[in-house]
Amino acid sequence: MDQAVADFVREITPALQERRRDLHKFAESGWLEFRTATLVAEELHRLGYSLKLGREVIDAQSRMGLPSAEVLAQQEQRALSQGALPQWLSHFSGGFCGIVATLETGRPGPVIAFRVDMDALDVIELQEPEHRPFAEGFASCNEGMMHACGHDGHTTIGLGLAQVLKQFESRLTGTIKLIFQPAEEGTRGAKSMVAAGVLDDVDFFTAIHIGTGVPAGELVCGNDSFMATTKLDVTFRGVASHAGARPEEGNNALLAAAQATLALHTLPQHSGGSSRINVGVLQAGTGRNVVADRAFMKVETRGATNEINDFIYQKALQALAGAAAMYDVQHEIALMGAARSSQPTQPWVNFIRQQAGQIPELTSLVDKREQAAGSEDATYMMERVKELGGQASYIIFGTELSAGHHNEKFDFNEQVMATAVKTLAALAFNIQDFREEA
Amino acid sequence: MDQAVADFVREITPALQERRRDLHKFAESGWLEFRTATLVAEELHRLGYSLKLGREVIDAQSRMGLPSAEVLAQQEQRALSQGALPQWLSHFSGGFCGIVATLETGRPGPVIAFRVDMDALDVIELQEPEHRPFAEGFASCNEGMMHACGHDGHTTIGLGLAQVLKQFESRLTGTIKLIFQPAEEGTRGAKSMVAAGVLDDVDFFTAIHIGTGVPAGELVCGNDSFMATTKLDVTFRGVASHAGARPEEGNNALLAAAQATLALHTLPQHSGGSSRINVGVLQAGTGRNVVADRAFMKVETRGATNEINDFIYQKALQALAGAAAMYDVQHEIALMGAARSSQPTQPWVNFIRQQAGQIPELTSLVDKREQAAGSEDATYMMERVKELGGQASYIIFGTELSAGHHNEKFDFNEQVMATAVKTLAALAFNIQDFREEA
Amino acid sequence: MDQAVADFVREITPALQERRRDLHKFAESGWLEFRTATLVAEELHRLGYSLKLGREVIDAQSRMGLPSAEVLAQQEQRALSQGALPQWLSHFSGGFCGIVATLETGRPGPVIAFRVDMDALDVIELQEPEHRPFAEGFASCNEGMMHACGHDGHTTIGLGLAQVLKQFESRLTGTIKLIFQPAEEGTRGAKSMVAAGVLDDVDFFTAIHIGTGVPAGELVCGNDSFMATTKLDVTFRGVASHAGARPEEGNNALLAAAQATLALHTLPQHSGGSSRINVGVLQAGTGRNVVADRAFMKVETRGATNEINDFIYQKALQALAGAAAMYDVQHEIALMGAARSSQPTQPWVNFIRQQAGQIPELTSLVDKREQAAGSEDATYMMERVKELGGQASYIIFGTELSAGHHNEKFDFNEQVMATAVKTLAALAFNIQDFREEA
Amino acid sequence: MDQAVADFVREITPALQERRRDLHKFAESGWLEFRTATLVAEELHRLGYSLKLGREVIDAQSRMGLPSAEVLAQQEQRALSQGALPQWLSHFSGGFCGIVATLETGRPGPVIAFRVDMDALDVIELQEPEHRPFAEGFASCNEGMMHACGHDGHTTIGLGLAQVLKQFESRLTGTIKLIFQPAEEGTRGAKSMVAAGVLDDVDFFTAIHIGTGVPAGELVCGNDSFMATTKLDVTFRGVASHAGARPEEGNNALLAAAQATLALHTLPQHSGGSSRINVGVLQAGTGRNVVADRAFMKVETRGATNEINDFIYQKALQALAGAAAMYDVQHEIALMGAARSSQPTQPWVNFIRQQAGQIPELTSLVDKREQAAGSEDATYMMERVKELGGQASYIIFGTELSAGHHNEKFDFNEQVMATAVKTLAALAFNIQDFREEA
Repeated sequence: MDQAVADFVREITPALQERRRDLHKFAESGWLEFRTATLVAEELHRLGYSLKLGREVIDAQSRMGLPSAEVLAQQEQRALSQGALPQWLSHFSGGFCGIVATLETGRPGPVIAFRVDMDALDVIELQEPEHRPFAEGFASCNEGMMHACGHDGHTTIGLGLAQVLKQFESRLTGTIKLIFQPAEEGTRGAKSMVAAGVLDDVDFFTAIHIGTGVPAGELVCGNDSFMATTKLDVTFRGVASHAGARPEEGNNALLAAAQATLALHTLPQHSGGSSRINVGVLQAGTGRNVVADRAFMKVETRGATNEINDFIYQKALQALAGAAAMYDVQHEIALMGAARSSQPTQPWVNFIRQQAGQIPELTSLVDKREQAAGSEDATYMMERVKELGGQASYIIFGTELSAGHHNEKFDFNEQVMATAVKTLAALAFNIQDFREEA
Repeated sequence: MDQAVADFVREITPALQERRRDLHKFAESGWLEFRTATLVAEELHRLGYSLKLGREVIDAQSRMGLPSAEVLAQQEQRALSQGALPQWLSHFSGGFCGIVATLETGRPGPVIAFRVDMDALDVIELQEPEHRPFAEGFASCNEGMMHACGHDGHTTIGLGLAQVLKQFESRLTGTIKLIFQPAEEGTRGAKSMVAAGVLDDVDFFTAIHIGTGVPAGELVCGNDSFMATTKLDVTFRGVASHAGARPEEGNNALLAAAQATLALHTLPQHSGGSSRINVGVLQAGTGRNVVADRAFMKVETRGATNEINDFIYQKALQALAGAAAMYDVQHEIALMGAARSSQPTQPWVNFIRQQAGQIPELTSLVDKREQAAGSEDATYMMERVKELGGQASYIIFGTELSAGHHNEKFDFNEQVMATAVKTLAALAFNIQDFREEA
Repeated sequence: MDQAVADFVREITPALQERRRDLHKFAESGWLEFRTATLVAEELHRLGYSLKLGREVIDAQSRMGLPSAEVLAQQEQRALSQGALPQWLSHFSGGFCGIVATLETGRPGPVIAFRVDMDALDVIELQEPEHRPFAEGFASCNEGMMHACGHDGHTTIGLGLAQVLKQFESRLTGTIKLIFQPAEEGTRGAKSMVAAGVLDDVDFFTAIHIGTGVPAGELVCGNDSFMATTKLDVTFRGVASHAGARPEEGNNALLAAAQATLALHTLPQHSGGSSRINVGVLQAGTGRNVVADRAFMKVETRGATNEINDFIYQKALQALAGAAAMYDVQHEIALMGAARSSQPTQPWVNFIRQQAGQIPELTSLVDKREQAAGSEDATYMMERVKELGGQASYIIFGTELSAGHHNEKFDFNEQVMATAVKTLAALAFNIQDFREEA
Repeated sequence: MDQAVADFVREITPALQERRRDLHKFAESGWLEFRTATLVAEELHRLGYSLKLGREVIDAQSRMGLPSAEVLAQQEQRALSQGALPQWLSHFSGGFCGIVATLETGRPGPVIAFRVDMDALDVIELQEPEHRPFAEGFASCNEGMMHACGHDGHTTIGLGLAQVLKQFESRLTGTIKLIFQPAEEGTRGAKSMVAAGVLDDVDFFTAIHIGTGVPAGELVCGNDSFMATTKLDVTFRGVASHAGARPEEGNNALLAAAQATLALHTLPQHSGGSSRINVGVLQAGTGRNVVADRAFMKVETRGATNEINDFIYQKALQALAGAAAMYDVQHEIALMGAARSSQPTQPWVNFIRQQAGQIPELTSLVDKREQAAGSEDATYMMERVKELGGQASYIIFGTELSAGHHNEKFDFNEQVMATAVKTLAALAFNIQDFREEA
């Protein structure tokens, strides 16, 4: 590790902490990262990166699980009242909060890309002194939205990396791309950036996460444990009638949903590996004495491989159509999120391991970890890069957590941010050392 | 009651008893009444009636719940070995065991028709001394077939009536039609006789039953309590696979049947009156460790009115199609039987009550009885006659029973046969007294 | 009809209309009739009736479907702000909004009771000019509560009757009881008044309704078409877990509810008469990727007779317990309402018909009407009166409706109130003419 | 490989083929291996082994999935008529067809055991010239029983091994145990031999299979891919009633079974590894118009580990009890089979690989193969041996198959038998070379 870089990172560390706490306080959930995106754009612009924004990097039709137009408008107004920068906001209006910053060095070399995500979760943050963000005044002021997964840290790492790379720009070759993604929670956003072509020129791709149970000081260099997943909202619409006086006039959407629920849960047995299905939410009916004319279900499928998930998903579509037909009700399916399984490319994992070996804070380097069964939509980006012949990995920086991810008491040791910035910077500075056969 | 008729009936009563016991012993179930039909034809021919037989009175396509060709052939052979008359058998071959005997008096007058049924049930008759048919040597010798509903008596009454009418032919006017129907059990046969046009010239129609809980000495002159019904066999065909090694390769017909079963049983709530559905038999799968590729269900719907039954039946078809779609399996539905609800025409009920008043054995005459919820396919005949402007009723002669209908110990007091013959004969002899406004 | 009475009713008719519109505007739903009850108490007190209030006439433990303590307190405050009379309010506090007014004539004679109900529905009233209550300024100002069933009219009729009877008190004999009941909707309140002994001295009982499809000018003198019913809320509580990472750690309450739903809907086939079951509302789960740890269902059973309803209800309890056991989840059942079937006593129906014959506005008098399959908890009161040897009936005054009951556009022709007052008054004035054998 | 042994095996190969074909022709399925067992006993006795038979090596209570007493008696009679040796038959009577042959060398050394199974499957063998066993006259003459899994080969290998070991007895040390097990199909028999103590003194244990998709010439030295499994038969008993006339009097066992089926199939999602459940057979009801009073289900659970299988099994028991409670029907569960997952001990696998290296016919030696998801009850024996500190493995001899296992056209290349005999003999002859640390 070059001492100059290490010194510079140490110098900016207090600013990184401040940045992260500001993002944490004004947490914004998926597709609603209006304030966050304007601050990110402003900083990258200030540093001299070329920016592509909003619809340039987000394909409108490929977005999944978008909030209603009404919510989008309300939240954009709130963002303004909380310090979103008006000069950037129009780019993101309507749920297009993505940014790609590019640094062309002018020197020959590959395109190396880093992806961070910016969205918070729909969680109510604990407002008690035992919770450090509350005690130190940076707990979320947006009720029902909380950075309980560390994406505030990811965004901050992205910005810190931008600063370091710019500071030592002369050491770089080729092209650097920094990708700031919205709506990773629910695996809703990555696909739309892939569809917009953001990854099409990338030779080396790295997505990151902090925490996830990995101990402090450890780096997982090539995480491969994500399950492919599909998230769907299902609505059944039937005909209401008085359940006592005219039961025969109703087409019962609640019964269709009950049958569908059972059918879906009978599907996931597969010899190819793990598979899952879950009807997590079911809401049906309007009154006790009314044949229910409406039912709504939140469903997800998962598979250890894309093939398994696709298989279960197709079976699920059949089961839902069948259940609707059973009771002569209409049904609609809305795709609310999706992610792929993806294997990192081994040469790139090897290179990451080798570079990470220079970072003194990283005391344990592993390629993989035990099966985790979570999902992550950066896999769409990995698959696209690999499809075009590039190298890709997903790396995890271990850190201390105050509570599990998605918990109301979640917090992390902010030191991990400096470590991550140095590690990612090393990949960029030393890319010319990469060897396919390593 | 004319004394001459009464005396004649008394005279032939021992022969009626003998006839009934012969039919009882050689019980033949629905569409397999080969021996019975040849004996009936021979007797009616001997008496001088004009006969229409087999395909002349049974529409092939309208038959429901027909046994397999193999069973039909086997049983026809058995019938021969048990005394079926070869000279008549060819008419009935292949499941066409129906007979219509006509007596044209040459005198002006209406067409008056009587319908009796000839089939036994798929019941194993008790072979114990406590059961009179066994003790007296006329229990069924055809294992698994038993006259446990009294149709042996009905057929005998029909033949007794033929004898009486012929004996006193000079008193008759118009035309007499005696209809001997196969396959009433499961409500499979009547529709095919209607479709063959047997009822199209009938002015006055009467179908009969004995027993059914009506006390001895009572006549129900216009029973109206039959529910409309549809009987269907359902087969689901999927794809088998090893349940441990390749569960995903199977399309599970057993699960489709389980879903269908529950869906069907959620259907029958109707404000218009009673409705029913039943999955009475479900058989699925070939082995414990095999994803089931086949399921079979015996289903029936019922309704207090034809409209209700049709409504439930249509709902059932939807539910079955939906269940098949759910699991991507094929399904087939075979119509195995059907009957209608039907109201008797009041003037004819009044006339029957008036004529029955002359029969000393009938000590109680009622128009209706309490709701019974059984089904009967003579209703198809009643509906046809009424549709063409005729009069129709369904009458029940009370009698002592040794056990309920369809029970292995069923037997009845044979005296009811003479009473029935006299009552029906009175209708024919006095038809000129009928008044619409009575 | 006595002209003096008719004149007096005509005189007070404008006040009745005003009263009804005031009640309509400040609609209060079941157990929350705080303002209404204080106004009723004040008027009855002013007229000189002896009053029993609140806990004197409502048995606390027998109340069903009570709102939460929080809602009760909030609504009581709102009532105060909308003109509830503080001097009466304490009697009704906590959900005891019942009143029984008694007039002892001092002359020998029976106890004759009339029951009206006071509660509104949880319906949002249409706020459009096409809807008369809105156009004329008396649409509900309490959002989500609306007199969409006519109980505002019933309460007004009760007060008008009180006024007439008091005006002509000298013509009365025996004792008059006027019963003002809360929470009829959902059949929640009557049982608690019966349990408090309100009906124990009653010789003649009449409950009323307006509208319900009966044409204007017609009186149904002895409605008997109410189905017995039981309303229950069911909660399943399981264990949540991450549906992808730890599906085996969850105990799935949503699946238990789906199974229970199907099982319940398979229950209601009964040869004794109509029966019903409905799962009208099902709400389960917290998130798409979480094994649901909670499910909630609103269920009701109905039967043409009390026996049928009780039978279906017991079957339902078994099905619910079984479904909980299936998935190892806890379940709780809360009784939210109940009503009985009840036959009116014929002599009293005859007397009502005879008295109604004197009311010129009533141009059609019928004993019954076609089966309607609704439910009504005045049946608890009828059954109690009959049990103690009294006479009871339920009568319906036909009137024009602007839309069906429970519809957001419901309104009725207010002239029916004067007709009802006169009819009920006639029963009281002429009670000495009643004959058992009439 | 010692040439003398090889020569001897070559010499007896025609006799092995003849033996196998005799066993194939007189196929006997599980617990019914009467003829087979007497022939095995006779041969082992002839060779001079000490025998333990029947109840000495089979614990009566631990047997699972036993045929009825009637079937046992019938089949024993048939065996006699097909050449079973009366002098041995009494030992096996009643379903105790197990044999353990022991050879005490008198020289110090461990106990080394080999296990083969003897039962056929309930499959109808193809009787067509294209099928070699038919063409060459040794297709099964017992309709509905067929050696379609190769156990005829296994038994023959066991007997060939006995012959070789006896022939070269002087080279052996310690004790040899040859275990001939009944009823492996359905995983019904091994547990009862473990319960009888057969494995309690064993130091080295090897069970074998031929085929299973392993290519000819390959030996799997330590197969570990068996899933733990439990087989259960479930019976629901309710109350029948006429589905039209008295639906409320029935307690519907068919509906309970349908609910249970769906509930069972919703259970197997587990993060610990593969899990399975299957309702393979469902048979319910007696007639279309009868509320079903009986339902029968064949069910199995599986798990990648014993813990997972046990978990699913316990969940299944709850679901079944809940389904019975739902419809107020009785239920009974009969354990019909079970097997464990089991890991071979690595030192023993290493030794097997090393010894197999001397067998020229074995051209490929692998430790494991891809996950197969079958089950095998030799795992009970492996677990017992390991529990007491011994070494255990399960080995598979690849061979050409004419069709998949359990198929009506199954056949195998008989040369594999000689290869297996030589390999197993080598283990015994060279046991003194075994090293724990190898």
